[in-house]
Amino acid sequence: MRILILGGDGYLGWPTAMHFSNRGDEVFLVDNFIKRRWEMEDGIEPLLPISSLHRRVSTWKEQTGKSIKLEIGDLQNHRFVYSIFENYKPDAIIHYGEQPSAPYSMQSRETAVYTQVNNIVGTMNLMFAMNKFCPTSNLVKLGTLGEYGTPNIDIEEGWLEVNHNGRTDKMMYPKKPGSFYHLSKVHDSHNLEFACRIWGLTVTDLNQGVVYGINTKETKLHPDLRTSFHYDGIFGTVLNRFLVQAAVNMPLSIYGKGSQTRGFLNICDTIACVELAIDKPGKPGEFRVLNQFTEQFSIMELAEKVKSVGERNNFKVEIKFFDNPRIEQEDHYYNAKHQELVNLGLKPNFLTDKLLDKMFQDVISNVHRVNTDLFDPKIKWKQN
Amino acid sequence: MRILILGGDGYLGWPTAMHFSNRGDEVFLVDNFIKRRWEMEDGIEPLLPISSLHRRVSTWKEQTGKSIKLEIGDLQNHRFVYSIFENYKPDAIIHYGEQPSAPYSMQSRETAVYTQVNNIVGTMNLMFAMNKFCPTSNLVKLGTLGEYGTPNIDIEEGWLEVNHNGRTDKMMYPKKPGSFYHLSKVHDSHNLEFACRIWGLTVTDLNQGVVYGINTKETKLHPDLRTSFHYDGIFGTVLNRFLVQAAVNMPLSIYGKGSQTRGFLNICDTIACVELAIDKPGKPGEFRVLNQFTEQFSIMELAEKVKSVGERNNFKVEIKFFDNPRIEQEDHYYNAKHQELVNLGLKPNFLTDKLLDKMFQDVISNVHRVNTDLFDPKIKWKQN
Repeated sequence: MRILILGGDGYLGWPTAMHFSNRGDEVFLVDNFIKRRWEMEDGIEPLLPISSLHRRVSTWKEQTGKSIKLEIGDLQNHRFVYSIFENYKPDAIIHYGEQPSAPYSMQSRETAVYTQVNNIVGTMNLMFAMNKFCPTSNLVKLGTLGEYGTPNIDIEEGWLEVNHNGRTDKMMYPKKPGSFYHLSKVHDSHNLEFACRIWGLTVTDLNQGVVYGINTKETKLHPDLRTSFHYDGIFGTVLNRFLVQAAVNMPLSIYGKGSQTRGFLNICDTIACVELAIDKPGKPGEFRVLNQFTEQFSIMELAEKVKSVGERNNFKVEIKFFDNPRIEQEDHYYNAKHQELVNLGLKPNFLTDKLLDKMFQDVISNVHRVNTDLFDPKIKWKQN
Repeated sequence: MRILILGGDGYLGWPTAMHFSNRGDEVFLVDNFIKRRWEMEDGIEPLLPISSLHRRVSTWKEQTGKSIKLEIGDLQNHRFVYSIFENYKPDAIIHYGEQPSAPYSMQSRETAVYTQVNNIVGTMNLMFAMNKFCPTSNLVKLGTLGEYGTPNIDIEEGWLEVNHNGRTDKMMYPKKPGSFYHLSKVHDSHNLEFACRIWGLTVTDLNQGVVYGINTKETKLHPDLRTSFHYDGIFGTVLNRFLVQAAVNMPLSIYGKGSQTRGFLNICDTIACVELAIDKPGKPGEFRVLNQFTEQFSIMELAEKVKSVGERNNFKVEIKFFDNPRIEQEDHYYNAKHQELVNLGLKPNFLTDKLLDKMFQDVISNVHRVNTDLFDPKIKWKQN
């Protein structure tokens, strides 16, 4: 299959590229390296240095004999997007190419507007290019479970059967996103549902939980092939941060009560889910939404897990509570459905002690690289 | 009250400005005249020529002795928006300053992207400026009834009490917009609800139906003070077009079956509704949605009304059916609630024979100005 991966330099984009290349697909990567610039703006580095994308692609070729094609450009530039689609006519598109951080989007007016324009315009250009050059291809778009917020009812997968005053309709599930970033994904979802309805495009919107994990089968082949591991307050995620805090003997920092509950999944399951969405597309013209996560935990439960992993490894781990820089519900109902991907064939990798121990070992062996200044959440949802 | 009106040169913006100025409020207008440029792009003129905004403001002063302040600039330019808010510190803001046409937004990739970026970024700049300079002011934002689409259940006013699997939540009403323009308004609504929730802004989102009517009390004072009357395929609305078609002895053109049903209201009621939203704001931090229309009609019913008005005036009126350039449901349930504005005190002006006769007379006396080339809907929802 000819697979175009947008955002191919990212945490998920690069391992996804290797996975499909490995199984014999023709893979084309697009990136504009803007994420690397955002990291520089705030002095952020991943735990381990990441090779340039050009080097990764050439090391991949050396290691496996397989080629990955690379095009550098910005999805906001529609001439670039159109030329990619005209030249490569992909069978499937995997779209990771968006600004992915909630705190980044909440930093200022500039970053809020930038996030929404970048994400919406990139996705619109993509929709128009698909409709023009390959209207029957299959778009797999990364959304986020955070689009739903924390409603007091069960979270369904994208659509909701609504009964009201004795009548019924299947409607888009009402979203309550928690940042300008999450809002941008809700806007994308609405635009994409419209493109399916009007033009007959085929789209799977993967409403993904928080991803953890450092390695996939392919990242371990060579140090050049590794993917990024962020533990900072902007691009880092909570489990990563807890593991790094434990490794440097600092308290695990919980913002608010820690009762906030979210869906989580292993990076290997992200790739498995994307593969299922590619190999088993929705019906032509369908806007399909799949909730992509395997387990839900409260922040406190995660902290307890990391405390245990530390203690098993003879680290003394403390848990400390701080003011929540976000505005979010702390005590809330949370029951998000995630059956569809299992129905398609997903076999989840759960967050076991063994996996946590392995991740902790990886962190410990690179503890000299940790910059403890990066833990603090410098961005607040409400400036006073 | 200090009232800032964005989009003050428009069909609704200008009569709104005169209304508030007349009752003694201090009125500040902002416009960038981009709508006049869009009209030029497609060779569109309103039925009667409209004076420049500067001339309207000076004629208003001559006629009434009252001053309206004018600032020319673009809401996408945040420095301009911030300077307006810093200088004028408005008590209330009426936001009409968006690209208002569904067909315009469906013309091309360029106009689709332009519509979404213009509308979203303008509104975001406004939200940030309010939060910075006058967080307790009252924003009245024009949305559209078209955000809802044509669901198979009753349309409530912005929010819906959802019962699902034995649990309940009050959620934003699920929207199903029918064009990139309508989508931009849905995106605005989500962004504004977030600003209310996170920053405590006070916003009324007026989900308005299709407006008809040429005159308000103030527009009749002097020819310079009139507002625009569009009957073309891009900025015109259906009742206007039917009246003009009848006046030039052309058949009334129905696209599709004519069973499409929408909400309608008189321009005088638009102003009355905006006034109610200004004088009776929502609670601090509330995102209030009011459905702003007074009656619902199918397109066929409107055509029959115009046929009758023509026949009463000795015109022979034919009704003709054409392919629908839009993709929309033609046979559908439609029951949109519109009680909240009545509860606030709205006394509707209904679409009576008398009013239709008066509008028809106004059209007839300017029939020499009609450009019949403008009737055709040149923009299709699906290019083949």
